[in-house]
Amino acid sequence: MRTAYYISDGTAITAEVFGHALLSLFTIEFKHITIPFVETTEEAIEVVRKISESFQDDDQRPLVFYTIVNIEVRKIVSKSVGINYNFLDQFVAPLEKVLGVPSKPEKHRTHSIHEKTYDIRIEAVNYALANDDGSNLKDYHEADIILVGVSRSGKTPTSLYLALQYGIKAANYPFTEDDMGDILRLPASLRRFKDKLFGLTIQADRLHQIRSERRANSKYASLKQCRMELREVENLYRKEKIPFLNSTRFSIEEISAKILATTGLQRKKY
Amino acid sequence: MRTAYYISDGTAITAEVFGHALLSLFTIEFKHITIPFVETTEEAIEVVRKISESFQDDDQRPLVFYTIVNIEVRKIVSKSVGINYNFLDQFVAPLEKVLGVPSKPEKHRTHSIHEKTYDIRIEAVNYALANDDGSNLKDYHEADIILVGVSRSGKTPTSLYLALQYGIKAANYPFTEDDMGDILRLPASLRRFKDKLFGLTIQADRLHQIRSERRANSKYASLKQCRMELREVENLYRKEKIPFLNSTRFSIEEISAKILATTGLQRKKY
Repeated sequence: MRTAYYISDGTAITAEVFGHALLSLFTIEFKHITIPFVETTEEAIEVVRKISESFQDDDQRPLVFYTIVNIEVRKIVSKSVGINYNFLDQFVAPLEKVLGVPSKPEKHRTHSIHEKTYDIRIEAVNYALANDDGSNLKDYHEADIILVGVSRSGKTPTSLYLALQYGIKAANYPFTEDDMGDILRLPASLRRFKDKLFGLTIQADRLHQIRSERRANSKYASLKQCRMELREVENLYRKEKIPFLNSTRFSIEEISAKILATTGLQRKKY
Repeated sequence: MRTAYYISDGTAITAEVFGHALLSLFTIEFKHITIPFVETTEEAIEVVRKISESFQDDDQRPLVFYTIVNIEVRKIVSKSVGINYNFLDQFVAPLEKVLGVPSKPEKHRTHSIHEKTYDIRIEAVNYALANDDGSNLKDYHEADIILVGVSRSGKTPTSLYLALQYGIKAANYPFTEDDMGDILRLPASLRRFKDKLFGLTIQADRLHQIRSERRANSKYASLKQCRMELREVENLYRKEKIPFLNSTRFSIEEISAKILATTGLQRKKY
């Protein structure tokens, strides 16, 4: 199996995302190795040695995706036996021309604590945790968005993703039996912030499956209960004109992107 | 201000990460607009219209970063008035040559629910939440890693990031006054899993500042208390040979990358 290396003097996240996107266009399996924080010439030489080793082991030249700001370090890595993808660099000179200014590469400018919005993201994560699962009804005035839906419809992971990636303060509230007397009504705590509500729903059989993994053979997990709850929340969304999304076929990344696109909610971080 | 567009028939996350990394090399501010899920020719025409509008408004040609699998959609977007960065495409043909097989672009292969490791990531997020802040001592046998440290040293956001991004099951345990009688000792619940422990520490003045935002003027937030707790945990890490990291100057992305690099812990997702 051929090896793909992701190398950087930072986290190597950019190299990973780019390399992963490129390799996902092929149906071949690769062995993946990330080496972050390659900051000295000694470390760079060690990286080159590892790449040579992979070439020996695999009998195929490794693919090497890298973004390296330090010129000495970059020069050494670029001379490995691997096939180089210094994918950012070839866009820099043309972009300098377009923008009419020289680039000023600095280490640790992306994915680092020096990003302007870093503290906002951490605050949003703390907010999402403190306002998970209806655990706190009194801080909704601070929310950028409040995700609602039945238990296990994807609210919590989506809230965390919105917070971690975009610095968006996302609370979430689960509609439970208690809210569903005869008919599901919007609790007063939510009605005050109706403009911030976004609903999630899911296919009944998928919900049944997810809940069964948690509590097999319970009323909670029964297909009948799942169907009833979903019918109630979907009716509520329609009646109250709450925008909503069926999460069944979507990842949290996709759900989050769709929420931003639908609501026009502005992310704090790009 | 010049506008940068990130466009895709998927989430546009790859376009955002690439574009953001490239633009961060310049000290110029940009206006950012992401348009995900451009899947029809009608939507593509609307995108082209928006790009023209930005050109009118800014009097500068927008930068357009895109990854689009659908050929018709891509053709339309590529003819906008923007400056195009179809950054993946130019690497595809050379890579086909290297690999000796044609690429098979498919929609939604990255960042989608169809990724093989998607369920593992969601399970890891649920695990991180259930095992946050020492809330559950009985599932540590399932942990890939157990982060330890004093309150507010970065354990929770790091656990969530390891779970969300890499599908790693990360528990976390806070050392508290209760563990620190005369001297901090490793609780029995942790000693059983000593090989999984990874310590976080932080500078005392930074910890004092973070805790003061939560509980100003408390004993908990006092610089004296912070210093005492940090001295105790650092002594413990050294005595017990627990690998550890000072998180003061690092983002959760950097902390996570360093943990993986130090421990050799294998991620479930690339």
